[in-house]
Amino acid sequence: MKKTALIMAGGRGERFWPRSRKNMPKQFLSLTEDRKTLIQHTVNRILPLVDLEDIYISTNKDYLPLVKEQLPDIPDENILCEPVGRNTAPCIGLAAAHITKKYEESVMLVLPSDHMIRHNQMFVNTLEDAIALANDGENLVTIGIMPEYPETGYGYIKFLSRERKLSGYKVETFAEKPSIELAKEYVSSGDYLWNSGMFAWKTSSILAAFERIMPDVSEGLEIIKNAIGTSAQNDILEKTFPTFPSISIDYGIMEKSPNIYTIPGNFGWDDVGSWNAMDRTQKSNEFGNIIDGNVITVGTNDCIIQGTDKLMACVGLKDIIVVDTKDATLICHKDSSSEIKKVLENLKICNRTEYL
Amino acid sequence: MKKTALIMAGGRGERFWPRSRKNMPKQFLSLTEDRKTLIQHTVNRILPLVDLEDIYISTNKDYLPLVKEQLPDIPDENILCEPVGRNTAPCIGLAAAHITKKYEESVMLVLPSDHMIRHNQMFVNTLEDAIALANDGENLVTIGIMPEYPETGYGYIKFLSRERKLSGYKVETFAEKPSIELAKEYVSSGDYLWNSGMFAWKTSSILAAFERIMPDVSEGLEIIKNAIGTSAQNDILEKTFPTFPSISIDYGIMEKSPNIYTIPGNFGWDDVGSWNAMDRTQKSNEFGNIIDGNVITVGTNDCIIQGTDKLMACVGLKDIIVVDTKDATLICHKDSSSEIKKVLENLKICNRTEYL
Repeated sequence: MKKTALIMAGGRGERFWPRSRKNMPKQFLSLTEDRKTLIQHTVNRILPLVDLEDIYISTNKDYLPLVKEQLPDIPDENILCEPVGRNTAPCIGLAAAHITKKYEESVMLVLPSDHMIRHNQMFVNTLEDAIALANDGENLVTIGIMPEYPETGYGYIKFLSRERKLSGYKVETFAEKPSIELAKEYVSSGDYLWNSGMFAWKTSSILAAFERIMPDVSEGLEIIKNAIGTSAQNDILEKTFPTFPSISIDYGIMEKSPNIYTIPGNFGWDDVGSWNAMDRTQKSNEFGNIIDGNVITVGTNDCIIQGTDKLMACVGLKDIIVVDTKDATLICHKDSSSEIKKVLENLKICNRTEYL
Repeated sequence: MKKTALIMAGGRGERFWPRSRKNMPKQFLSLTEDRKTLIQHTVNRILPLVDLEDIYISTNKDYLPLVKEQLPDIPDENILCEPVGRNTAPCIGLAAAHITKKYEESVMLVLPSDHMIRHNQMFVNTLEDAIALANDGENLVTIGIMPEYPETGYGYIKFLSRERKLSGYKVETFAEKPSIELAKEYVSSGDYLWNSGMFAWKTSSILAAFERIMPDVSEGLEIIKNAIGTSAQNDILEKTFPTFPSISIDYGIMEKSPNIYTIPGNFGWDDVGSWNAMDRTQKSNEFGNIIDGNVITVGTNDCIIQGTDKLMACVGLKDIIVVDTKDATLICHKDSSSEIKKVLENLKICNRTEYL
């Protein structure tokens, strides 16, 4: 069976400000010493499974130059430019249409572009299991992550540990981001996994699901598919795609489908949701600091310091995040990183768009 | 009686790094909203008492351009350039020689250039008292400050509260920077004042003290004085001044003299010894922050933030000092400001002199 992949790279994250900006979202940043960006790592990780010419990138016009610059080996026709953002369901549908146009049938992996994974081989092994399960009938497979703590920022997957199929388990239900009390219940129950937003299915399976649950979108995708490779391709896309509802694949398709399975992944996953993630994904020095750039520390512990060529001297600090860029510096307590968005709100209100 | 003043501006403070640098010490910085520098404030404060042409500035070759730029109204011949640093005793002797050359007798005020004073009129009143006391015989007068807490970074003056003369008190002894235990004793005894390093005396009194206690320096000063205004002035200074011992006026002269009086000053004095002094000398906003520059704060309290035109966003900080400059940024906990010197030591060791 042909293996294909969609990497979704249209996101506009704000939580890595000031490194991430409106015109430079997280997936195009390097957060590791090897200077490779998150999307480059994402592509490299699946190369043992999927040929380069079968990897599709969904993005938008603003980020098209970044995608082409950072992923020069991806064929131009595999870069799918959404005319407007419509969340993951239409995004995945569009890619399924393109892939089906090229290969009548294939197993399609769907991956976010901005996550970090520590154990690449374990990840590949899990994807292989997911592919096998997706290939066994019409299953829609989602990769779950065994929760390590009661995170309230993720969706959860409730699975049935007795209903096993190959390496996967039947999904009973999807749960939205929970309260802390509910999250604690989920974790202690052992019946819930974090929803990682990674999927595997046959293109025929997902398109059949669209046809069944979202028939209008399905019709639109058919029109778009027929136009691929013709002179009308762009016009049709520009006309049709914006008519799709903005809805995630989880709520639009997965929750309403039978045959949903999850594979509990165990490969050091991190969605890198804020600067604090550096603590989980990077190795700290003997003082617990994660340091990059022209930095001097005195009596400073457990800090994340992302400097530049400019000298940054940190004295007597603990649990502080420092991120310097050419035109803006962030200094933030680790416990307050969720408040960074208030800085951006303030900048918007004051029309200081140059910093966004 | 003619009134003259010496403002000492040769110091090379490191504690306001990165704003203060080897080529830009504290006295030439502005730390107040009015953008006037510390030395400019020092000169302005005594203008009700001393004419501009009777104010002398001692400095060294490195800072001569800064003195001329910041104090353009001080006559060139009043700017005394020390060939080498020899602490305050030779510095004051040199100024006394110059002043005696101009006026046979005068009362001479001696003031550091880098202190802050909140109540200018109270300060002037105290100096008037000091001048009157200096003029009454051969008294050497030092301005003391009633201690507010057991500071270990200052020298102390033990005075005799029953031996009063005009507005002053007889000094029993000078005490070096004490341990914290000793400092507590000093403060609770009520018999000690902080040594502010400000003095008043007749030029004849201080030169007589030099003649009595440091006869070699006295001879050298006489040679220098005789050369003032001649073509040999500079050569003689360059030859003679380096032969003087490096010693402070407190230990070189005051401790060994009779007729030492102190006037307890009460005018909101601060020696601005570190960035923390901003808390005492500047008005904070409703969140306890003292802010300058292009700064956004979210959930940030009791911080000192000296920004520039570059955006500085502070989130969730407490008791942090941030000082940004063109080529270096300092981020320092208020409790650790005495450790800033370790940054400078590190820079020296690494020969990164461009930051010193």
